[in-house]
Amino acid sequence: MTDSGKVYHRSCTGPALQTVEQHAQDQDITLFASCFCPFVQRVWTALEYLEIPYKYYEVDPYQKSQELLNVSPKGLVPALMLNTFNPPRALNESTVILDFLEDIAAKSTHRSLFPPSTDPYAKALVRLQSDHISRTLVPAFYKYLQAQDPEAQISGGKEFHAAIQSLVELFERAEREVGGTGLWVEGGGLGWADVMVAPWIFRATNALKHYRGFEMPRGTKFEAWLGRLFEHPAFKKTCSDEELYLDSYERYAFNRPNTSQVANAINSGRGLP
Amino acid sequence: MTDSGKVYHRSCTGPALQTVEQHAQDQDITLFASCFCPFVQRVWTALEYLEIPYKYYEVDPYQKSQELLNVSPKGLVPALMLNTFNPPRALNESTVILDFLEDIAAKSTHRSLFPPSTDPYAKALVRLQSDHISRTLVPAFYKYLQAQDPEAQISGGKEFHAAIQSLVELFERAEREVGGTGLWVEGGGLGWADVMVAPWIFRATNALKHYRGFEMPRGTKFEAWLGRLFEHPAFKKTCSDEELYLDSYERYAFNRPNTSQVANAINSGRGLP
Repeated sequence: MTDSGKVYHRSCTGPALQTVEQHAQDQDITLFASCFCPFVQRVWTALEYLEIPYKYYEVDPYQKSQELLNVSPKGLVPALMLNTFNPPRALNESTVILDFLEDIAAKSTHRSLFPPSTDPYAKALVRLQSDHISRTLVPAFYKYLQAQDPEAQISGGKEFHAAIQSLVELFERAEREVGGTGLWVEGGGLGWADVMVAPWIFRATNALKHYRGFEMPRGTKFEAWLGRLFEHPAFKKTCSDEELYLDSYERYAFNRPNTSQVANAINSGRGLP
Repeated sequence: MTDSGKVYHRSCTGPALQTVEQHAQDQDITLFASCFCPFVQRVWTALEYLEIPYKYYEVDPYQKSQELLNVSPKGLVPALMLNTFNPPRALNESTVILDFLEDIAAKSTHRSLFPPSTDPYAKALVRLQSDHISRTLVPAFYKYLQAQDPEAQISGGKEFHAAIQSLVELFERAEREVGGTGLWVEGGGLGWADVMVAPWIFRATNALKHYRGFEMPRGTKFEAWLGRLFEHPAFKKTCSDEELYLDSYERYAFNRPNTSQVANAINSGRGLP
Protein backbone atom coordinates (compact mmCIF):
# COMPACT_ATOMS: atom_id res chain seq x y z
CA MET A 1 0.00 0.00 0.00
CA THR A 2 1.16 3.57 -0.55
CA ASP A 3 0.84 6.33 1.98
CA SER A 4 -1.57 8.28 -0.19
CA GLY A 5 -4.05 7.47 -2.91
CA LYS A 6 -5.19 4.03 -3.93
CA VAL A 7 -3.32 0.86 -3.14
CA TYR A 8 -0.85 -0.60 -5.53
CA HIS A 9 -0.43 -4.30 -5.65
CA ARG A 10 2.68 -6.16 -4.67
CA SER A 11 1.67 -9.56 -5.88
CA CYS A 12 -0.13 -11.04 -8.83
CA THR A 13 -3.71 -12.27 -8.67
CA GLY A 14 -5.80 -14.66 -10.77
CA PRO A 15 -4.09 -16.75 -13.47
CA ALA A 16 -0.80 -14.84 -13.06
CA LEU A 17 -0.61 -15.82 -9.38
CA GLN A 18 -0.84 -19.51 -10.30
CA THR A 19 2.01 -19.03 -12.78
CA VAL A 20 4.11 -17.26 -10.15
CA GLU A 21 3.58 -20.21 -7.79
CA GLN A 22 4.72 -22.62 -10.51
CA HIS A 23 7.90 -20.58 -11.01
CA ALA A 24 9.18 -20.16 -7.45
CA GLN A 25 12.13 -22.53 -7.76
CA ASP A 26 15.67 -21.35 -8.51
CA GLN A 27 16.58 -21.49 -12.19
CA ASP A 28 19.39 -20.25 -14.44
CA ILE A 29 17.29 -17.15 -15.12
CA THR A 30 15.53 -15.04 -12.48
CA LEU A 31 12.94 -12.56 -13.74
CA PHE A 32 12.80 -9.48 -11.51
CA ALA A 33 9.20 -8.44 -12.00
CA SER A 34 6.37 -6.26 -10.76
CA CYS A 35 2.88 -7.61 -11.06
CA PHE A 36 1.35 -4.55 -12.75
CA CYS A 37 4.19 -3.65 -15.14
CA PRO A 38 3.44 -4.06 -18.86
CA PHE A 39 7.15 -4.06 -19.80
CA VAL A 40 7.58 -7.03 -17.45
CA GLN A 41 4.59 -8.75 -19.00
CA ARG A 42 6.27 -8.66 -22.41
CA VAL A 43 9.26 -10.56 -21.11
CA TRP A 44 7.18 -12.89 -18.99
CA THR A 45 4.97 -13.83 -21.95
CA ALA A 46 8.05 -14.51 -24.08
CA LEU A 47 9.55 -16.75 -21.38
CA GLU A 48 6.32 -18.73 -21.30
CA TYR A 49 5.99 -19.01 -25.07
CA LEU A 50 9.63 -19.86 -25.68
CA GLU A 51 9.47 -22.44 -22.84
CA ILE A 52 12.61 -21.11 -21.18
CA PRO A 53 12.87 -22.12 -17.48
CA TYR A 54 12.81 -19.12 -15.13
CA LYS A 55 12.09 -18.09 -11.58
CA TYR A 56 9.58 -15.26 -11.10
CA TYR A 57 10.70 -12.82 -8.43
CA GLU A 58 8.37 -10.01 -7.42
CA VAL A 59 10.00 -6.68 -6.54
CA ASP A 60 8.62 -3.27 -5.65
CA PRO A 61 9.89 -0.70 -8.18
CA TYR A 62 8.60 2.15 -6.00
CA GLN A 63 10.72 1.06 -3.03
CA LYS A 64 13.91 0.04 -4.76
CA SER A 65 15.82 -2.53 -2.73
CA GLN A 66 19.58 -2.89 -3.02
CA GLU A 67 18.91 -6.32 -4.50
CA LEU A 68 16.95 -4.71 -7.36
CA LEU A 69 19.54 -1.96 -7.87
CA ASN A 70 22.20 -4.63 -8.21
CA VAL A 71 20.52 -6.14 -11.27
CA SER A 72 19.06 -2.92 -12.65
CA PRO A 73 21.05 0.27 -11.98
CA LYS A 74 18.01 2.52 -12.47
CA GLY A 75 15.87 0.16 -10.41
CA LEU A 76 13.63 -0.57 -13.37
CA VAL A 77 11.85 -3.80 -14.14
CA PRO A 78 11.98 -6.08 -16.03
CA ALA A 79 15.49 -7.24 -15.25
CA LEU A 80 16.96 -10.68 -15.72
CA MET A 81 19.53 -12.14 -13.38
CA LEU A 82 21.63 -14.73 -15.15
CA ASN A 83 22.73 -17.18 -12.50
CA THR A 84 24.98 -19.31 -14.68
CA PHE A 85 27.64 -16.61 -14.44
CA ASN A 86 29.73 -16.24 -11.30
CA PRO A 87 29.08 -13.63 -10.07
CA PRO A 88 25.63 -13.49 -11.68
CA ARG A 89 25.13 -10.99 -14.50
CA ALA A 90 22.12 -8.85 -15.24
CA LEU A 91 20.20 -7.58 -18.24
CA ASN A 92 17.49 -4.99 -18.51
CA GLU A 93 15.35 -3.15 -21.10
CA SER A 94 12.42 -5.25 -22.24
CA THR A 95 13.24 -5.19 -25.96
CA VAL A 96 16.88 -6.12 -25.35
CA ILE A 97 15.72 -9.00 -23.14
CA LEU A 98 13.28 -10.20 -25.82
CA ASP A 99 16.10 -10.42 -28.37
CA PHE A 100 18.25 -12.25 -25.80
CA LEU A 101 15.50 -14.78 -25.04
CA GLU A 102 14.96 -15.36 -28.75
CA ASP A 103 18.69 -16.14 -29.13
CA ILE A 104 18.63 -18.42 -26.07
CA ALA A 105 15.62 -20.30 -27.41
CA ALA A 106 17.26 -20.74 -30.82
CA LYS A 107 19.94 -22.79 -29.07
CA SER A 108 17.77 -24.65 -26.57
CA THR A 109 14.01 -25.03 -27.02
CA HIS A 110 14.06 -24.21 -30.77
CA ARG A 111 10.99 -22.06 -30.41
CA SER A 112 10.74 -18.60 -31.94
CA LEU A 113 8.50 -15.54 -31.99
CA PHE A 114 9.61 -14.72 -35.55
CA PRO A 115 7.93 -15.99 -38.71
CA PRO A 116 8.85 -19.62 -39.43
CA SER A 117 10.18 -18.58 -42.81
CA THR A 118 13.85 -17.63 -42.93
CA ASP A 119 13.03 -14.73 -45.23
CA PRO A 120 14.85 -11.61 -43.95
CA TYR A 121 12.11 -9.45 -45.46
CA ALA A 122 9.40 -11.14 -43.36
CA LYS A 123 11.53 -10.58 -40.28
CA ALA A 124 12.01 -6.93 -41.24
CA LEU A 125 8.24 -6.45 -41.43
CA VAL A 126 7.99 -7.74 -37.86
CA ARG A 127 10.72 -5.30 -36.78
CA LEU A 128 8.75 -2.49 -38.43
CA GLN A 129 5.65 -3.48 -36.42
CA SER A 130 7.75 -3.58 -33.28
CA ASP A 131 9.34 -0.20 -33.99
CA HIS A 132 5.89 1.34 -34.38
CA ILE A 133 4.74 -0.16 -31.08
CA SER A 134 7.75 1.15 -29.14
CA ARG A 135 7.92 4.59 -30.63
CA THR A 136 4.28 5.46 -31.25
CA LEU A 137 1.71 3.13 -29.72
CA VAL A 138 3.12 2.79 -26.19
CA PRO A 139 3.82 6.53 -25.73
CA ALA A 140 0.30 7.28 -27.06
CA PHE A 141 -1.16 4.95 -24.41
CA TYR A 142 0.45 6.89 -21.54
CA LYS A 143 -0.26 10.28 -23.02
CA TYR A 144 -3.93 9.34 -23.28
CA LEU A 145 -4.13 7.81 -19.80
CA GLN A 146 -2.49 10.82 -18.19
CA ALA A 147 -4.41 13.48 -20.12
CA GLN A 148 -6.45 15.51 -17.64
CA ASP A 149 -8.52 18.10 -19.46
CA PRO A 150 -11.29 16.93 -21.80
CA GLU A 151 -9.68 18.27 -24.96
CA ALA A 152 -6.41 16.50 -24.24
CA GLN A 153 -8.34 13.31 -23.49
CA ILE A 154 -10.17 13.51 -26.79
CA SER A 155 -7.02 14.11 -28.81
CA GLY A 156 -5.19 11.47 -26.72
CA GLY A 157 -7.91 8.95 -27.51
CA LYS A 158 -7.73 9.76 -31.21
CA GLU A 159 -3.95 9.42 -31.22
CA PHE A 160 -4.03 6.05 -29.47
CA HIS A 161 -6.79 4.87 -31.80
CA ALA A 162 -4.72 5.94 -34.82
CA ALA A 163 -1.67 4.10 -33.44
CA ILE A 164 -3.70 0.88 -33.23
CA GLN A 165 -4.98 1.49 -36.74
CA SER A 166 -1.42 1.92 -38.05
CA LEU A 167 -0.42 -1.35 -36.40
CA VAL A 168 -3.31 -3.09 -38.13
CA GLU A 169 -2.11 -1.63 -41.44
CA LEU A 170 1.33 -3.08 -40.80
CA PHE A 171 -0.28 -6.47 -40.03
CA GLU A 172 -2.26 -6.22 -43.27
CA ARG A 173 0.85 -5.34 -45.24
CA ALA A 174 2.58 -8.43 -43.83
CA GLU A 175 -0.46 -10.50 -44.73
CA ARG A 176 -0.35 -9.23 -48.32
CA GLU A 177 3.38 -9.51 -48.78
CA VAL A 178 4.49 -12.55 -46.75
CA GLY A 179 1.28 -14.35 -45.80
CA GLY A 180 0.96 -12.67 -42.40
CA THR A 181 2.81 -12.65 -39.10
CA GLY A 182 2.00 -13.90 -35.60
CA LEU A 183 -1.57 -14.25 -34.40
CA TRP A 184 -2.92 -11.97 -37.11
CA VAL A 185 -2.96 -15.20 -39.14
CA GLU A 186 -5.75 -17.57 -38.13
CA GLY A 187 -3.95 -20.63 -36.79
CA GLY A 188 -0.67 -18.70 -36.47
CA GLY A 189 1.63 -18.85 -33.47
CA LEU A 190 2.22 -16.03 -31.02
CA GLY A 191 4.45 -13.47 -32.74
CA TRP A 192 7.05 -10.90 -31.73
CA ALA A 193 4.77 -7.90 -32.29
CA ASP A 194 1.91 -9.66 -30.48
CA VAL A 195 4.12 -9.97 -27.39
CA MET A 196 5.43 -6.42 -27.78
CA VAL A 197 1.94 -4.88 -27.84
CA ALA A 198 -0.27 -7.25 -25.83
CA PRO A 199 0.23 -5.68 -22.36
CA TRP A 200 -0.95 -2.24 -23.53
CA ILE A 201 -3.79 -3.52 -25.68
CA PHE A 202 -4.92 -5.51 -22.66
CA ARG A 203 -4.71 -2.49 -20.34
CA ALA A 204 -6.68 -0.52 -22.91
CA THR A 205 -9.57 -2.95 -22.34
CA ASN A 206 -9.49 -2.48 -18.58
CA ALA A 207 -7.71 0.69 -17.36
CA LEU A 208 -8.35 2.88 -20.42
CA LYS A 209 -11.91 1.64 -20.69
CA HIS A 210 -12.56 2.30 -17.00
CA TYR A 211 -10.83 5.67 -16.65
CA ARG A 212 -11.30 7.09 -20.14
CA GLY A 213 -14.27 5.23 -21.58
CA PHE A 214 -12.03 3.92 -24.35
CA GLU A 215 -13.59 1.49 -26.79
CA MET A 216 -11.47 -0.78 -28.96
CA PRO A 217 -11.74 -0.29 -32.72
CA ARG A 218 -14.19 -2.70 -34.34
CA GLY A 219 -13.63 -4.96 -37.30
CA THR A 220 -14.02 -8.68 -37.82
CA LYS A 221 -10.34 -9.44 -38.41
CA PHE A 222 -9.16 -7.10 -35.66
CA GLU A 223 -11.55 -8.59 -33.13
CA ALA A 224 -10.54 -12.11 -34.12
CA TRP A 225 -6.87 -11.19 -33.57
CA LEU A 226 -7.72 -9.61 -30.21
CA GLY A 227 -9.56 -12.77 -29.17
CA ARG A 228 -6.64 -15.00 -30.14
CA LEU A 229 -4.21 -12.71 -28.33
CA PHE A 230 -6.12 -12.52 -25.05
CA GLU A 231 -6.85 -16.26 -25.07
CA HIS A 232 -3.31 -17.32 -25.93
CA PRO A 233 -2.08 -19.44 -23.00
CA ALA A 234 1.37 -17.80 -22.87
CA PHE A 235 -0.26 -14.40 -22.45
CA LYS A 236 -3.27 -15.38 -20.35
CA LYS A 237 -1.01 -17.07 -17.78
CA THR A 238 0.63 -13.70 -17.09
CA CYS A 239 -2.62 -11.78 -16.53
CA SER A 240 -3.92 -10.84 -13.11
CA ASP A 241 -7.56 -10.07 -12.37
CA GLU A 242 -8.97 -6.80 -13.65
CA GLU A 243 -9.01 -5.14 -10.21
CA LEU A 244 -5.21 -5.17 -10.06
CA TYR A 245 -4.95 -3.11 -13.24
CA LEU A 246 -7.70 -0.68 -12.29
CA ASP A 247 -6.01 -0.06 -8.94
CA SER A 248 -2.55 0.23 -10.46
CA TYR A 249 -3.52 2.76 -13.13
CA GLU A 250 -5.72 4.91 -10.91
CA ARG A 251 -2.88 7.27 -10.13
CA TYR A 252 -1.79 7.54 -13.74
CA ALA A 253 -5.36 8.39 -14.66
CA PHE A 254 -5.40 11.24 -12.14
CA ASN A 255 -1.83 12.17 -13.03
CA ARG A 256 -0.20 11.79 -9.67
CA PRO A 257 2.15 8.88 -10.29
CA ASN A 258 5.02 10.69 -8.62
CA THR A 259 7.28 7.76 -8.29
CA SER A 260 6.99 6.32 -11.77
CA GLN A 261 9.73 7.05 -14.26
CA VAL A 262 7.33 6.39 -17.10
CA ALA A 263 5.01 9.14 -15.96
CA ASN A 264 7.80 11.59 -15.32
CA ALA A 265 9.25 10.94 -18.76
CA ILE A 266 5.90 11.49 -20.44
CA ASN A 267 5.22 14.66 -18.50
CA SER A 268 8.61 16.08 -19.34
CA GLY A 269 8.30 15.11 -23.00
CA ARG A 270 11.27 12.75 -22.97
CA GLY A 271 11.41 9.21 -24.29
CA LEU A 272 10.25 6.30 -22.19
CA PRO A 273 12.76 4.86 -19.74
CA MET B 1 18.98 25.89 -52.19
CA THR B 2 16.07 26.87 -50.00
CA ASP B 3 14.09 30.07 -50.35
CA SER B 4 15.35 31.40 -47.05
CA GLY B 5 18.37 30.86 -44.85
CA LYS B 6 21.50 29.00 -45.77
CA VAL B 7 21.77 26.51 -48.59
CA TYR B 8 21.23 22.88 -48.03
CA HIS B 9 23.12 20.43 -50.11
CA ARG B 10 21.61 18.05 -52.58
CA SER B 11 24.66 16.00 -53.32
CA CYS B 12 27.58 14.54 -51.42
CA THR B 13 31.05 16.05 -51.48
CA GLY B 14 34.52 14.73 -50.68
CA PRO B 15 35.02 11.00 -50.08
CA ALA B 16 31.25 10.37 -50.02
CA LEU B 17 30.90 11.75 -53.55
CA GLN B 18 33.45 9.24 -54.82
CA THR B 19 31.49 6.45 -53.17
CA VAL B 20 28.26 7.69 -54.74
CA GLU B 21 29.92 7.63 -58.16
CA GLN B 22 31.03 4.03 -57.59
CA HIS B 23 27.46 3.05 -56.73
CA ALA B 24 25.49 4.53 -59.60
CA GLN B 25 24.65 1.23 -61.30
CA ASP B 26 21.36 -0.60 -60.79
CA GLN B 27 21.51 -3.28 -58.12
CA ASP B 28 19.08 -5.50 -56.21
CA ILE B 29 19.00 -2.85 -53.50
CA THR B 30 18.55 0.90 -54.04
CA LEU B 31 19.36 3.16 -51.09
CA PHE B 32 17.18 6.26 -51.12
CA ALA B 33 19.46 8.73 -49.40
CA SER B 34 20.09 12.36 -48.56
CA CYS B 35 23.67 13.50 -48.34
CA PHE B 36 23.39 15.22 -44.94
CA CYS B 37 21.16 12.71 -43.13
CA PRO B 38 22.77 10.81 -40.22
CA PHE B 39 20.10 8.09 -40.26
CA VAL B 40 21.04 7.44 -43.89
CA GLN B 41 24.71 7.36 -42.99
CA ARG B 42 24.06 4.49 -40.56
CA VAL B 43 22.60 2.35 -43.30
CA TRP B 44 25.15 3.44 -45.88
CA THR B 45 28.06 2.55 -43.57
CA ALA B 46 26.50 -0.87 -42.89
CA LEU B 47 26.09 -1.54 -46.63
CA GLU B 48 29.78 -0.71 -47.13
CA TYR B 49 30.98 -2.79 -44.19
CA LEU B 50 28.79 -5.79 -44.96
CA GLU B 51 29.83 -5.58 -48.63
CA ILE B 52 26.27 -5.77 -49.88
CA PRO B 53 25.88 -4.43 -53.45
CA TYR B 54 23.66 -1.33 -53.65
CA LYS B 55 22.85 1.68 -55.76
CA TYR B 56 23.03 5.08 -54.02
CA TYR B 57 20.13 7.30 -55.01
CA GLU B 58 20.05 10.89 -53.75
CA VAL B 59 16.62 12.34 -52.94
CA ASP B 60 15.49 15.61 -51.43
CA PRO B 61 13.50 14.93 -48.24
CA TYR B 62 12.35 18.56 -48.12
CA GLN B 63 10.75 18.32 -51.53
CA LYS B 64 9.23 14.88 -51.38
CA SER B 65 8.84 13.41 -54.84
CA GLN B 66 6.20 10.80 -55.60
CA GLU B 67 9.06 8.38 -56.21
CA LEU B 68 10.23 8.87 -52.61
CA LEU B 69 6.71 8.64 -51.20
CA ASN B 70 6.30 5.33 -53.00
CA VAL B 71 9.15 3.74 -51.05
CA SER B 72 8.66 5.69 -47.83
CA PRO B 73 5.08 6.69 -46.99
CA LYS B 74 6.19 9.55 -44.69
CA GLY B 75 8.81 10.62 -47.22
CA LEU B 76 11.63 9.87 -44.79
CA VAL B 77 15.09 8.63 -45.63
CA PRO B 78 16.74 6.18 -45.42
CA ALA B 79 14.55 3.85 -47.44
CA LEU B 80 15.54 0.73 -49.31
CA MET B 81 13.92 -0.31 -52.53
CA LEU B 82 14.20 -4.06 -53.02
CA ASN B 83 14.24 -4.63 -56.75
CA THR B 84 14.23 -8.41 -56.68
CA PHE B 85 10.51 -8.31 -55.91
CA ASN B 86 8.02 -7.58 -58.65
CA PRO B 87 6.69 -4.99 -58.02
CA PRO B 88 9.63 -3.77 -55.94
CA ARG B 89 9.13 -3.62 -52.18
CA ALA B 90 10.35 -1.01 -49.77
CA LEU B 91 11.71 -0.82 -46.23
CA ASN B 92 12.34 2.14 -43.99
CA GLU B 93 13.45 3.04 -40.45
CA SER B 94 17.23 2.91 -40.10
CA THR B 95 17.33 0.38 -37.25
CA VAL B 96 14.94 -1.97 -39.04
CA ILE B 97 17.07 -1.72 -42.17
CA LEU B 98 20.26 -2.48 -40.19
CA ASP B 99 18.73 -5.69 -38.87
CA PHE B 100 17.61 -6.58 -42.40
CA LEU B 101 21.08 -5.99 -43.85
CA GLU B 102 22.63 -8.09 -41.09
CA ASP B 103 20.26 -10.95 -42.01
CA ILE B 104 21.03 -10.53 -45.72
CA ALA B 105 24.77 -10.57 -45.08
CA ALA B 106 24.48 -13.71 -42.95
CA LYS B 107 23.24 -15.51 -46.06
CA SER B 108 25.49 -13.90 -48.66
CA THR B 109 28.71 -12.13 -47.70
CA HIS B 110 28.98 -13.80 -44.25
CA ARG B 111 30.02 -10.52 -42.67
CA SER B 112 28.49 -9.24 -39.47
CA LEU B 113 28.43 -6.17 -37.24
CA PHE B 114 27.83 -8.36 -34.16
CA PRO B 115 30.54 -9.89 -31.99
CA PRO B 116 32.12 -12.93 -33.66
CA SER B 117 31.19 -15.02 -30.64
CA THR B 118 27.80 -16.70 -30.80
CA ASP B 119 27.22 -15.84 -27.14
CA PRO B 120 23.68 -14.38 -26.81
CA TYR B 121 24.85 -12.37 -23.81
CA ALA B 122 27.52 -10.56 -25.85
CA LYS B 123 24.88 -9.77 -28.46
CA ALA B 124 22.55 -8.47 -25.74
CA LEU B 125 25.24 -6.07 -24.53
CA VAL B 126 25.44 -4.66 -28.05
CA ARG B 127 21.64 -4.27 -28.13
CA LEU B 128 21.86 -2.40 -24.82
CA GLN B 129 24.42 -0.01 -26.33
CA SER B 130 22.19 0.45 -29.34
CA ASP B 131 19.09 1.04 -27.20
CA HIS B 132 20.94 3.77 -25.29
CA ILE B 133 22.03 5.44 -28.53
CA SER B 134 18.50 5.49 -29.98
CA ARG B 135 16.64 6.55 -26.90
CA THR B 136 19.08 8.87 -25.15
CA LEU B 137 22.14 9.90 -27.13
CA VAL B 138 20.50 10.85 -30.45
CA PRO B 139 17.64 12.84 -28.87
CA ALA B 140 20.21 14.63 -26.64
CA PHE B 141 22.17 15.63 -29.75
CA TYR B 142 19.16 17.40 -31.31
CA LYS B 143 18.01 18.95 -28.06
CA TYR B 144 21.46 20.46 -27.61
CA LEU B 145 21.81 21.63 -31.20
CA GLN B 146 18.39 23.30 -31.15
CA ALA B 147 18.73 24.89 -27.71
CA GLN B 148 18.57 28.67 -28.12
CA ASP B 149 19.03 30.37 -24.77
CA PRO B 150 22.37 30.03 -22.98
CA GLU B 151 21.01 28.07 -20.03
CA ALA B 152 19.37 25.50 -22.29
CA GLN B 153 22.59 25.24 -24.28
CA ILE B 154 24.59 24.57 -21.14
CA SER B 155 22.21 21.92 -19.85
CA GLY B 156 21.92 20.49 -23.38
CA GLY B 157 25.69 20.21 -23.59
CA LYS B 158 25.85 18.49 -20.22
CA GLU B 159 23.13 16.06 -21.20
CA PHE B 160 24.82 15.15 -24.48
CA HIS B 161 28.14 14.78 -22.70
CA ALA B 162 26.53 12.47 -20.11
CA ALA B 163 24.98 10.39 -22.90
CA ILE B 164 28.42 9.84 -24.45
CA GLN B 165 29.80 8.99 -21.01
CA SER B 166 27.05 6.38 -20.49
CA LEU B 167 27.87 4.83 -23.86
CA VAL B 168 31.51 4.59 -22.83
CA GLU B 169 30.40 2.86 -19.62
CA LEU B 170 28.46 0.33 -21.68
CA PHE B 171 31.55 -0.24 -23.85
CA GLU B 172 33.63 -0.74 -20.70
CA ARG B 173 31.11 -3.17 -19.30
CA ALA B 174 31.31 -5.20 -22.51
CA GLU B 175 35.09 -5.08 -22.30
CA ARG B 176 35.00 -6.43 -18.75
CA GLU B 177 32.36 -9.06 -19.35
CA VAL B 178 32.87 -10.34 -22.89
CA GLY B 179 36.24 -8.94 -23.96
CA GLY B 180 34.79 -5.89 -25.69
CA THR B 181 32.64 -5.12 -28.72
CA GLY B 182 33.27 -3.39 -32.05
CA LEU B 183 35.99 -0.81 -32.45
CA TRP B 184 36.27 -0.22 -28.71
CA VAL B 185 38.64 -3.18 -28.89
CA GLU B 186 41.99 -2.32 -30.43
CA GLY B 187 42.13 -4.40 -33.60
CA GLY B 188 38.37 -5.08 -33.47
CA GLY B 189 36.04 -4.85 -36.44
CA LEU B 190 33.40 -2.19 -36.95
CA GLY B 191 30.50 -3.00 -34.61
CA TRP B 192 26.74 -2.49 -34.53
CA ALA B 193 26.87 0.28 -31.91
CA ASP B 194 29.74 1.98 -33.74
CA VAL B 195 27.57 2.22 -36.85
CA MET B 196 24.52 3.28 -34.82
CA VAL B 197 26.32 6.19 -33.18
CA ALA B 198 29.02 7.26 -35.66
CA PRO B 199 26.98 9.83 -37.65
CA TRP B 200 26.09 11.86 -34.53
CA ILE B 201 29.52 11.60 -32.93
CA PHE B 202 30.94 12.82 -36.23
CA ARG B 203 28.48 15.73 -36.43
CA ALA B 204 29.39 16.59 -32.85
CA THR B 205 32.94 17.23 -34.05
CA ASN B 206 31.82 19.57 -36.82
CA ALA B 207 28.30 21.04 -36.41
CA LEU B 208 28.14 20.95 -32.60
CA LYS B 209 31.69 22.21 -32.32
CA HIS B 210 31.02 25.03 -34.76
CA TYR B 211 27.61 26.16 -33.52
CA ARG B 212 27.85 25.29 -29.82
CA GLY B 213 31.57 25.15 -29.09
CA PHE B 214 31.19 21.53 -28.08
CA GLU B 215 34.37 19.68 -27.15
CA MET B 216 34.52 15.90 -27.13
CA PRO B 217 35.23 14.21 -23.79
CA ARG B 218 38.91 13.40 -23.32
CA GLY B 219 40.44 10.11 -22.35
CA THR B 220 43.05 7.90 -23.93
CA LYS B 221 40.77 4.94 -24.67
CA PHE B 222 37.90 7.13 -25.82
CA GLU B 223 40.11 9.11 -28.17
CA ALA B 224 41.62 5.92 -29.56
CA TRP B 225 38.12 4.58 -30.26
CA LEU B 226 37.14 7.88 -31.88
CA GLY B 227 40.20 7.71 -34.10
CA ARG B 228 39.48 4.14 -35.19
CA LEU B 229 35.85 5.05 -35.87
CA PHE B 230 36.52 8.12 -38.01
CA GLU B 231 39.32 6.40 -39.91
CA HIS B 232 37.39 3.22 -40.58
CA PRO B 233 37.08 2.91 -44.37
CA ALA B 234 33.39 1.87 -44.28
CA PHE B 235 32.55 5.04 -42.37
CA LYS B 236 35.01 7.43 -43.96
CA LYS B 237 33.72 6.56 -47.44
CA THR B 238 30.30 7.92 -46.46
CA CYS B 239 31.58 11.27 -45.14
CA SER B 240 31.30 14.51 -47.08
CA ASP B 241 33.53 17.52 -46.47
CA GLU B 242 32.94 19.55 -43.32
CA GLU B 243 31.27 22.44 -45.12
CA LEU B 244 28.30 20.26 -46.06
CA TYR B 245 27.54 19.51 -42.40
CA LEU B 246 28.05 23.07 -41.24
CA ASP B 247 25.65 24.32 -43.91
CA SER B 248 23.12 21.57 -43.27
CA TYR B 249 22.91 22.11 -39.52
CA GLU B 250 22.88 25.90 -39.61
CA ARG B 251 19.10 26.01 -39.53
CA TYR B 252 18.86 23.50 -36.71
CA ALA B 253 21.32 25.59 -34.75
CA PHE B 254 19.12 28.66 -35.16
CA ASN B 255 15.98 26.58 -34.67
CA ARG B 256 14.24 27.27 -37.93
CA PRO B 257 14.26 23.84 -39.55
CA ASN B 258 10.60 24.13 -40.49
CA THR B 259 10.53 21.26 -42.85
CA SER B 260 12.35 18.66 -40.81
CA GLN B 261 10.29 16.07 -38.99
CA VAL B 262 13.18 15.52 -36.58
CA ALA B 263 13.09 19.13 -35.47
CA ASN B 264 9.32 19.23 -35.21
CA ALA B 265 9.31 16.07 -33.12
CA ILE B 266 11.96 17.44 -30.76
CA ASN B 267 10.19 20.76 -30.40
CA SER B 268 6.87 19.10 -29.63
CA GLY B 269 8.46 16.67 -27.17
CA ARG B 270 7.55 13.57 -29.14
CA GLY B 271 9.82 10.69 -30.09
CA LEU B 272 11.97 10.87 -33.18
CA PRO B 273 10.36 9.92 -36.47
